[in-house]
Amino acid sequence: MSRTWPGIILANESIFPESISLSKGFTKPIENDIPTNKIKKQKYIFLNILSPFINTYKKSTKIVIYLCYLMVNMADYRFEMCKKSNMAKFEVALDKGLVDKMLIPFLKKINKRPNIYSSSCCAGRIMIIGLDTEESKKPNLFVLKEHRKVKFSEIKNALKTDKFPELWLKEEPFIFHFGTKDLETAKKFLEIKTKAGIRRGGIFHIKDNKYLIELIGSQTLAVPIKIGKKVLFSEEQIKIVLEKANKKLERNYKQLKEFCKELLKIE
Amino acid sequence: MSRTWPGIILANESIFPESISLSKGFTKPIENDIPTNKIKKQKYIFLNILSPFINTYKKSTKIVIYLCYLMVNMADYRFEMCKKSNMAKFEVALDKGLVDKMLIPFLKKINKRPNIYSSSCCAGRIMIIGLDTEESKKPNLFVLKEHRKVKFSEIKNALKTDKFPELWLKEEPFIFHFGTKDLETAKKFLEIKTKAGIRRGGIFHIKDNKYLIELIGSQTLAVPIKIGKKVLFSEEQIKIVLEKANKKLERNYKQLKEFCKELLKIE
Repeated sequence: MSRTWPGIILANESIFPESISLSKGFTKPIENDIPTNKIKKQKYIFLNILSPFINTYKKSTKIVIYLCYLMVNMADYRFEMCKKSNMAKFEVALDKGLVDKMLIPFLKKINKRPNIYSSSCCAGRIMIIGLDTEESKKPNLFVLKEHRKVKFSEIKNALKTDKFPELWLKEEPFIFHFGTKDLETAKKFLEIKTKAGIRRGGIFHIKDNKYLIELIGSQTLAVPIKIGKKVLFSEEQIKIVLEKANKKLERNYKQLKEFCKELLKIE
Repeated sequence: MSRTWPGIILANESIFPESISLSKGFTKPIENDIPTNKIKKQKYIFLNILSPFINTYKKSTKIVIYLCYLMVNMADYRFEMCKKSNMAKFEVALDKGLVDKMLIPFLKKINKRPNIYSSSCCAGRIMIIGLDTEESKKPNLFVLKEHRKVKFSEIKNALKTDKFPELWLKEEPFIFHFGTKDLETAKKFLEIKTKAGIRRGGIFHIKDNKYLIELIGSQTLAVPIKIGKKVLFSEEQIKIVLEKANKKLERNYKQLKEFCKELLKIE
């Protein structure tokens, strides 16, 4: 539920539940036990310990106390908002079948960690991609994109298109993006990455209370396969290169599986 | 020069120069002006302001003061040691001609920043690499490795080797490794990376007072070119793929040049 005051927006129901209302005065919540979740615990302390005193104050004093409370909680609040927004996107992607199937159980588990959320992730793929003369990748240029081994007949079919100046056959490794609430959690990702022998990735963005991490496998194949209307290679040659791409993808998935197990050790 | 006391090792001449000696007592250094370098400044203050008082203390008191001083300076000390060690390697690599020529002016400039040092860096390259059946890269498997455009005759020559189960033609983008003393400096690298549109890389290791950063370009080509004794493609086909590799390398160098300019804005 969202409520707007001049100058501040309180959109997070988990911090400001219905039971708090400036106009109605504070009411004590029904909760009996102190919650373990940090934000809920702060809320509990605020409602159970501070609110009885606050109820005797004027409205202006309450607003000042609220602002102080907000400032203290802003860091947590921002992260919670980011996580909520990313989890909403994750749910939509799940509904639309856009999340790589082999990643779903892992992502659901890792997203239960209070200090972590996942954003865009890919298990690794084989694709035929249309590029312009500058070889820049643009949306909707995937002629073929599969998160599994690919058959020669699929490649042959994809090569029929004449829409693009160039077609490339690519095998790309897994790529993960995570957000963490603190540097300590981000460091755990880095430690596991190093131990697991994952060579690429790191913390690529830090802002407010949010650390964004990228982790990438290293199995890569990329080769031009059609320029203009001319397929560059014979069927036999394409079969050999495709076999290599499939092998690389297999190796990528093996590495990914072991890596996911390790990542789930982060609390 | 290194000196050992029970429990502590003082190996850093820049922090504890000859002019300080526990047994001989402290002597005031000859320096006249306060140095700008942070560590040297701390040393100057220690020697010029504190030492006259310390000279009146007992040996045990001096050791305690030294330990406190060491703890305060340990973070700086560790970073200075890392930077010194990496700069020594850099000098050796320069002498042996192992540093990519186009990177030398940039690396010399960036290494003058007190909070930054470079470690292994590559401007981007085209290579023929020998792989085993697991496609793992091992030392000395470079049949051809050039940090410039490559001619077909060079590829043809490289393909003559029969030493490896597989040969791959690869174009790899630039890769930089930097160490920074603090998170603030590391964040500046990340900000410039994002602004410059460099998609890959980040802080990949954090320990004590050291943040290691990797930055990677995105121009990549990788394709098997010989399996066993059989070259997979005709000369004409290899020429087309090589032309693409050369174009990618050119684009990589253009991106690198602009990126280096931006990185030098970090103070």
